[in-house]
Amino acid sequence: MTRPDPLAKLIEQLQRLPGIGPKSAGRLAYHILKTPREEVDRLADAMREVKERITYCSVCSNITDIDPCFFCTSDARDGRIICVVEEPENVNAIEKTRQFNGRYHVLMGALSPLHGVGPGDLKIKELLERVARGSVEEVILATNPNVEGEATAIYLAKLLKPLGVRVTRIAMGVPVGSDLEYADDVTMQRAMEGRREI
Amino acid sequence: MTRPDPLAKLIEQLQRLPGIGPKSAGRLAYHILKTPREEVDRLADAMREVKERITYCSVCSNITDIDPCFFCTSDARDGRIICVVEEPENVNAIEKTRQFNGRYHVLMGALSPLHGVGPGDLKIKELLERVARGSVEEVILATNPNVEGEATAIYLAKLLKPLGVRVTRIAMGVPVGSDLEYADDVTMQRAMEGRREI
Repeated sequence: MTRPDPLAKLIEQLQRLPGIGPKSAGRLAYHILKTPREEVDRLADAMREVKERITYCSVCSNITDIDPCFFCTSDARDGRIICVVEEPENVNAIEKTRQFNGRYHVLMGALSPLHGVGPGDLKIKELLERVARGSVEEVILATNPNVEGEATAIYLAKLLKPLGVRVTRIAMGVPVGSDLEYADDVTMQRAMEGRREI
Repeated sequence: MTRPDPLAKLIEQLQRLPGIGPKSAGRLAYHILKTPREEVDRLADAMREVKERITYCSVCSNITDIDPCFFCTSDARDGRIICVVEEPENVNAIEKTRQFNGRYHVLMGALSPLHGVGPGDLKIKELLERVARGSVEEVILATNPNVEGEATAIYLAKLLKPLGVRVTRIAMGVPVGSDLEYADDVTMQRAMEGRREI
């Protein structure tokens, strides 16, 4: 009984969010308590609206509020290059570089036998169909640089190459702005292997 | 246009929360997107409910869903001791110790001339009235151990002592489980001053 019931309930709900522990949940709940009603409504409405209005693109599986999505329909985007990512949020990470002007394909995960995720659980069939349609020239595999992402990239490369398309993988190496001292062995090894003339 | 509009809006709203930067807001928004509709509703409802059902206790200013609050009405709590804190969330920190069985008084802030907070902005009049009613024997000043909290404690002590009540201040010193190496000068000084025979 140290906290009123509605507050305890809110803290419990907030704790279900990723990266929000009991302390942060408490801090957020007390903040919400002090926030003007209209602002709390705006946040609650924004949460509901995301669930109501956002769907997945029927072409690339990226999140969108119009189907097909902006990337798949925009004439300004180059349909000859498809960048394959695991999750919708990865699209944003690549867009922020402003270096890529092609289209996307979101797999909705990565192969992970340990977690029971096989090829049938990912949007692989859809990717192969897009490429088979013929106008695609390059597929960039931008799955995560971890075990699952690597396995997925290798698996996809095997399926894609016979279709006569160029298949590339994003570079792995030491992150820009970091210190070699903190690079792990595998990253360092990749950085050495991937070295280029300057 | 890298993110659908409803998602961008949610991220914007989430960023207004304390301790949530652009990265966390993005992560939370994508999580909400993947969360089942019912669970998102539960969170949104919990937020609204906190605003609707929680008010402030007319006696001690603590947050509550019944007025007067649990602490002010429970016979199990000792009305002769009042613990004064700055914010409702501080009550919880003290309750967690399970050492205090008195009642509370929430000031709703601390004196801060720099931020334009004077005695009239805090629930000081209400505290003095409670003490003047006569049954209170001790007032524990548990305002924060910082400049504003200290100033507020000293100010309150001056007002309370003439009312014939015992006025105490929570101990300041090195936190339990910490290392002396990391204690700042002022804390270390307080720890030395506050030393007790063992």
